[in-house]
Amino acid sequence: MTERMSIIIFSGTVDKLMAASILTTGGAAMGMEVEVFLTTWGLEAFRKDSYKTNMRVSKDFEEYGPVMMEQMKAKKAPSWMENFQNAKEIGDVRVYACSMTMELFGIKLADLEPIVEDVTGVATFVERAKDGKVTLFI
Amino acid sequence: MTERMSIIIFSGTVDKLMAASILTTGGAAMGMEVEVFLTTWGLEAFRKDSYKTNMRVSKDFEEYGPVMMEQMKAKKAPSWMENFQNAKEIGDVRVYACSMTMELFGIKLADLEPIVEDVTGVATFVERAKDGKVTLFI
Amino acid sequence: MTERMSIIIFSGTVDKLMAASILTTGGAAMGMEVEVFLTTWGLEAFRKDSYKTNMRVSKDFEEYGPVMMEQMKAKKAPSWMENFQNAKEIGDVRVYACSMTMELFGIKLADLEPIVEDVTGVATFVERAKDGKVTLFI
Repeated sequence: MTERMSIIIFSGTVDKLMAASILTTGGAAMGMEVEVFLTTWGLEAFRKDSYKTNMRVSKDFEEYGPVMMEQMKAKKAPSWMENFQNAKEIGDVRVYACSMTMELFGIKLADLEPIVEDVTGVATFVERAKDGKVTLFI
Repeated sequence: MTERMSIIIFSGTVDKLMAASILTTGGAAMGMEVEVFLTTWGLEAFRKDSYKTNMRVSKDFEEYGPVMMEQMKAKKAPSWMENFQNAKEIGDVRVYACSMTMELFGIKLADLEPIVEDVTGVATFVERAKDGKVTLFI
Repeated sequence: MTERMSIIIFSGTVDKLMAASILTTGGAAMGMEVEVFLTTWGLEAFRKDSYKTNMRVSKDFEEYGPVMMEQMKAKKAPSWMENFQNAKEIGDVRVYACSMTMELFGIKLADLEPIVEDVTGVATFVERAKDGKVTLFI
């Protein structure tokens, strides 16, 4: 039976999105089914083309931001969006948008990156997370 | 057998409290037992009447704060406190205060909103979380 | 069979490190095996001697920082590093550094506090977390 990892992405900073994308890749590489639920600022980060200009880093570590960005460039590390795309190619990864955030912020599925498959409610996400092995709030 | 969801609320910003309250509602609606453990800034947010004036939004997304607050008002979305109250009415939801934070900040149970049932230690919370299905740190 | 708690420490602020160290202590006290995975700013916080000068508190609650620090001093609360050390003495606690962060930031194991046992990859961490009972992202 496939084992599930569920990740709620609440934040939309590059450092947290990077962590989320690497955990997703790790799960997919281990043969797990990964369900990603985008809510609040995490959903904003998946608006079309937003990832191309998003340079936001956690304010708590803001002064390290430029160094991190530089190092990622110098070491040709894939972006968090590329990580999610790669994870989807190697494994069973599904990215869902939180219906409540969509409504609150007036976002439509067509406004989001194509990697977002569908819109779903929090109850459905929780229902599936509880049958899984790992659930994270990022 | 009832399935348990355990949520540690560490943060006290409105956006994260909203997410926590919606996850609590989702769990309760799915028939899960939800245990909420308030610690550090999350406990501060449950001080009596504090929710009435708390307009704090994650600094990482501060500029979106006023828009979010406006939209919630315009769409008559219930506040996070109302969400917790509703969740308690429809399901088995228990809100506990972290004993160590209480001591550190000199808070007494009487200083907290009535939705907080009791004070408990982290070991007891972990002991119960490990028999559950989903545990989140928010 | 030993039950496992897995904690990803992403943040490096004193308030979150304190929460992580107390959860680790709680898990160890309950007889659980605790695996801590240090990534991004959480790894920075474990650089040698860094904990001695780290006064960083979540920006969201920055104005409470000095009060918290004072209270911890006044009540002689052990530091988060002491908590981790104590947890290791009473139970089965292992602290690992994320290989990807090490490479990105150019950190070597010798640069880190001796409590960090080894370097590991995210896939290995996830593989072990999924056989555990509780997994947290802090």
